[in-house]
Amino acid sequence: MQHQFASDNYAGAHPAVLQAIAEANNGHAASYGDDEWTARAVARFREQLGNVEVSFVFNGTGANVVALAQMLRPHEAVICPESAHINVDEGGAPERFLGSKLIDVPTADGKLTREAVEARLTGLGDEHRVQPRVVSVSQTSELGTVYSLDDVSDLADFCHGHGLLLHVDGARIGNAAAALGVSLREATGDLGVDVLSFGGTKNGLLGAEAVVFFDRACGHGHRYTRKRSMQLGSKMRFLAVQLEALLTDELWLRNAAQANAMATRLAAAVDGLPGLTIEYPVQANAVFARLHRAAAQRVLERHRFYYWDERRGVVRWMCSWDTTAADVDEFAAAVREATIEVAREAAPR
Amino acid sequence: MQHQFASDNYAGAHPAVLQAIAEANNGHAASYGDDEWTARAVARFREQLGNVEVSFVFNGTGANVVALAQMLRPHEAVICPESAHINVDEGGAPERFLGSKLIDVPTADGKLTREAVEARLTGLGDEHRVQPRVVSVSQTSELGTVYSLDDVSDLADFCHGHGLLLHVDGARIGNAAAALGVSLREATGDLGVDVLSFGGTKNGLLGAEAVVFFDRACGHGHRYTRKRSMQLGSKMRFLAVQLEALLTDELWLRNAAQANAMATRLAAAVDGLPGLTIEYPVQANAVFARLHRAAAQRVLERHRFYYWDERRGVVRWMCSWDTTAADVDEFAAAVREATIEVAREAAPR
Amino acid sequence: MQHQFASDNYAGAHPAVLQAIAEANNGHAASYGDDEWTARAVARFREQLGNVEVSFVFNGTGANVVALAQMLRPHEAVICPESAHINVDEGGAPERFLGSKLIDVPTADGKLTREAVEARLTGLGDEHRVQPRVVSVSQTSELGTVYSLDDVSDLADFCHGHGLLLHVDGARIGNAAAALGVSLREATGDLGVDVLSFGGTKNGLLGAEAVVFFDRACGHGHRYTRKRSMQLGSKMRFLAVQLEALLTDELWLRNAAQANAMATRLAAAVDGLPGLTIEYPVQANAVFARLHRAAAQRVLERHRFYYWDERRGVVRWMCSWDTTAADVDEFAAAVREATIEVAREAAPR
Amino acid sequence: MQHQFASDNYAGAHPAVLQAIAEANNGHAASYGDDEWTARAVARFREQLGNVEVSFVFNGTGANVVALAQMLRPHEAVICPESAHINVDEGGAPERFLGSKLIDVPTADGKLTREAVEARLTGLGDEHRVQPRVVSVSQTSELGTVYSLDDVSDLADFCHGHGLLLHVDGARIGNAAAALGVSLREATGDLGVDVLSFGGTKNGLLGAEAVVFFDRACGHGHRYTRKRSMQLGSKMRFLAVQLEALLTDELWLRNAAQANAMATRLAAAVDGLPGLTIEYPVQANAVFARLHRAAAQRVLERHRFYYWDERRGVVRWMCSWDTTAADVDEFAAAVREATIEVAREAAPR
Repeated sequence: MQHQFASDNYAGAHPAVLQAIAEANNGHAASYGDDEWTARAVARFREQLGNVEVSFVFNGTGANVVALAQMLRPHEAVICPESAHINVDEGGAPERFLGSKLIDVPTADGKLTREAVEARLTGLGDEHRVQPRVVSVSQTSELGTVYSLDDVSDLADFCHGHGLLLHVDGARIGNAAAALGVSLREATGDLGVDVLSFGGTKNGLLGAEAVVFFDRACGHGHRYTRKRSMQLGSKMRFLAVQLEALLTDELWLRNAAQANAMATRLAAAVDGLPGLTIEYPVQANAVFARLHRAAAQRVLERHRFYYWDERRGVVRWMCSWDTTAADVDEFAAAVREATIEVAREAAPR
Repeated sequence: MQHQFASDNYAGAHPAVLQAIAEANNGHAASYGDDEWTARAVARFREQLGNVEVSFVFNGTGANVVALAQMLRPHEAVICPESAHINVDEGGAPERFLGSKLIDVPTADGKLTREAVEARLTGLGDEHRVQPRVVSVSQTSELGTVYSLDDVSDLADFCHGHGLLLHVDGARIGNAAAALGVSLREATGDLGVDVLSFGGTKNGLLGAEAVVFFDRACGHGHRYTRKRSMQLGSKMRFLAVQLEALLTDELWLRNAAQANAMATRLAAAVDGLPGLTIEYPVQANAVFARLHRAAAQRVLERHRFYYWDERRGVVRWMCSWDTTAADVDEFAAAVREATIEVAREAAPR
Repeated sequence: MQHQFASDNYAGAHPAVLQAIAEANNGHAASYGDDEWTARAVARFREQLGNVEVSFVFNGTGANVVALAQMLRPHEAVICPESAHINVDEGGAPERFLGSKLIDVPTADGKLTREAVEARLTGLGDEHRVQPRVVSVSQTSELGTVYSLDDVSDLADFCHGHGLLLHVDGARIGNAAAALGVSLREATGDLGVDVLSFGGTKNGLLGAEAVVFFDRACGHGHRYTRKRSMQLGSKMRFLAVQLEALLTDELWLRNAAQANAMATRLAAAVDGLPGLTIEYPVQANAVFARLHRAAAQRVLERHRFYYWDERRGVVRWMCSWDTTAADVDEFAAAVREATIEVAREAAPR
Repeated sequence: MQHQFASDNYAGAHPAVLQAIAEANNGHAASYGDDEWTARAVARFREQLGNVEVSFVFNGTGANVVALAQMLRPHEAVICPESAHINVDEGGAPERFLGSKLIDVPTADGKLTREAVEARLTGLGDEHRVQPRVVSVSQTSELGTVYSLDDVSDLADFCHGHGLLLHVDGARIGNAAAALGVSLREATGDLGVDVLSFGGTKNGLLGAEAVVFFDRACGHGHRYTRKRSMQLGSKMRFLAVQLEALLTDELWLRNAAQANAMATRLAAAVDGLPGLTIEYPVQANAVFARLHRAAAQRVLERHRFYYWDERRGVVRWMCSWDTTAADVDEFAAAVREATIEVAREAAPR
């Protein structure tokens, strides 16, 4: 299939990742993480993220649920943006597995603010109310925006000042760090993030994610939680080696920077087209555009992407690690053609 | 690491599996299973297992939990052998995710009988008692034994005559079918199995399992259950293609038959050694042996394996798809040497 | 303690209820509902509410959770007002026990509309999204307003036209029926309500509630759910006899009508006081008022009640079955005095 | 209904309990436990059981689940006798609410031993295994036997020496203390019990139980757990006052001693009847007898009781606080008549 703008998980794996898997497929290795590849991958995480606990899991929902399970006691709740992946895209897995309430907060641009969190801190100490304990934000946000370094450290400070913990759903943390021009650690632990769901799959892996515990108390007993949440791989080396590859020679950065650059290129190419509005600031690898439904439909005849908000006519275009300038230019041309045609047909004679 | 007899998941992936993954890593593909590789793998399952629903998941615990979640209503329970993987090796994931009781039954050889199930059918219709609904058996059993075709069809008949469903944890279903000399379908659906956890990882995959619903009513809505149980892979093609490879050119059979043959060879080589007893019939790829602790310790100095029952001195030796005759012979020689030495030292002068 | 306006559960039990309990305390009776009192109470429900299944439970949270557990499959969700008791006052019990998401919707006056529900019917058939299945509304609402008969039948029609079920949290259903001037059946089942949490405790009982299944398919197996949710009383006759008393000689109506009348009286007495606004239409037994914090504090020195929204200065005053005109007049006088004093002090000299 | 021997929860409430409820039904009281009756009941518990945390709940299943929820983290498990109420009589509520495994152990007489617990302490630190954390025993046991003081303190010592906590399901703790001739505290906290489900309903209450936390760390946050488990009564005074009555003037002891004495009387009256065997030592208020099915059936024509083990012909006869000598004598006469008749009919001519 040609390159699509539907999702960054339409892309395959980076060749270096497949190469690493092939190299790890060498004889026997102890299962469940007691192997040299896992040890090396953990070391790589500690080298780049600090003195963390880290747990490798299968997918993003798994990473988020394991992370939150480690942070919450049963009567505690999570405050998150209404658009959060845990709130709307995980099929209710968090409620099912955690048995905890997600207190979702509407946002303008997918980003939670200190004020919005504060307004939800009611009923503290009241047994009739769930007790907020975790603030969870996606970085990049689900709307393609990026919290600034100050945004994150402000949120972290607020959390820690109010007995809360900060979780970052970093399914696209690489894209965020690339956009911010900082290291992974500077984008997370250094700002006060307590637990990070570290995304690999969308950034060029076959399929592997990590839960990173900057707050090591949160990490206590994480192996049991991973097992109980069905996220423990037996041939762990094949998950670990993917993540090791991502943290080697800045593959994460090269992949993320490419995806980000392509989104910028796409936004520039379509901005100002008739009837088309860029809906949110394009800060990472996503472009949200509002356009005439008729125009969108024409593009959909040859390209795949998703409506984000069908009623408002907002679509989402994602760039991935393997998106090329040629892919963007071809797609932008299709959008240009469709919007212009639709505008022309709609124009009074 | 040299070949070990610790677990069949110490083995890597068969080269054909890596090759299939590499070939699938070709451009973009729709995520979450809406891709050509998944369609082909599903077709392969239907071709070989009948008109089934099938769902691809990450690991065996996930397969079992998804299977059982589809079979149970909340007040219903599972009857299983005490030694069942769901009962003792899944860290409580079934209870956690299903909220259901596992009624575990002691067995002589890991195999559940019709009589043992019948004895647990008490309190039917009594709201104070959980209501048995599923009988779950491992094929091969956790003790390396294999239910005969009659065993399975008897259990299935009994279940269906009593309003019960039959689940097979087939983490090693390939080894069982190979041992029985029948096709996968003849070993499962044709005997009345309602839902099968189809194992791939232990039989030469990188990591992929399937849930196979012979009873399609049980499969209703399985996609929601898979998502909610954190078992939905985004780049699904990379799971699907592994399973497709396993069902191509009888790779499953070649792998399983090799593992089984090596266990037979190992058992033959060590049977009758001084102080060593083969604990259960060797019918698939596992050898359970009881031997002097001192002898076991000597072997452990150079080889890895696990105690199954430390107090009784029973160890488990697993063969895998890549175990060779040379591996077996070297290992058997180590066992022979250790047992003879220990016997000599223990002998009265 | 003198009569308070803090909550209708500050009131005790109606004497007829205690009398009924004393009469039921006569020798032995079969436990868990297999007794004559339970049979009579069930018959009373069927006589007054139609051909229903009914289950007696301990408290309102229990009633709601049992009701919803019977209506939902695990991947399904509930749409409810943001102010719903299940959403904010049950300590997360629904999420914990059901493992399901509550999709909460902001409302102007505590009442959910067809349009608001419709706007949440997105992602249908998409495994990444929880699937709405139940609409749950409180009648009376948590803000003391009452859905009209048309409101409820419109919601029910909408639900049934969209594959949804309608649950009514009727902790104060008696107050609603009294306000609407209809029978309990006319207020619920006749309008298309599928399952009702029938409130008794707030309407003069010691402590007993019922789950009423108008949709008998929803009631299937409810005994198991009640047991599993820890809501099965052993000496059931003592729960049943309370509910029987409530449905005898229209005790429910007399109690509810008194509470409603007293709220009307209170609202009339305080409306127009300086700086005091009645916040929502007073349609049942609750008065929500906004007043100067200083005035509220003075009243709180001698009377107990709760802030509903501390930041906006909104308080809630509840009347109960035993509130008398004298209680209201004394309380209203205290409010009058406080508001006038505070206004005077605040006035420019 | 005349007095039965089916269950101690066939009995009604002691008159002193109803009287206490009537006295508490006096005007308004703050709800959810912030009232004087609750304060007094808590004080009574502390006076008689030591410096404990205590939580009043609706029923025994609720008490056990709240207790265990406070003692367990999600990956931890409970070791209990196979016959434990939590294991076989609570409809799976523990698994459902706790998500934890109950590791059940066969026993000869319903009593768990230190050795049996020790044998289950395997797989410690292994993420694939649930981690035992709580030992739960019923006192009296479900088979009517009573752990001696040494039995309990031995178990407690063993638990504390192995990082385990001891929970006692004391649905009949009054009967046990009465049988042992000690105070409630001497029967529980003084022996090292960490958390106690304190039974009231079976010992003469309308319906009320308590969770008693001797280990106050276990009690931390118990109010949230009670609410979340649907066990928080709004008109709490009516639960509290029942328990206060039970702890006043040794009502608990008088009730329990009477029930125990009647069981002793019954056992003495039927022991040695033809074909009848007393199955377990009669140490509290239960008699388990094995007798010819035909004889049991004749008695069942006029009296109610339950088969405990239908296949073995074992029945359970329970005495309650209100069982009289006349009740016992009449029942014993019926048993005598039936067994003699059946023996005569069976005798060779």
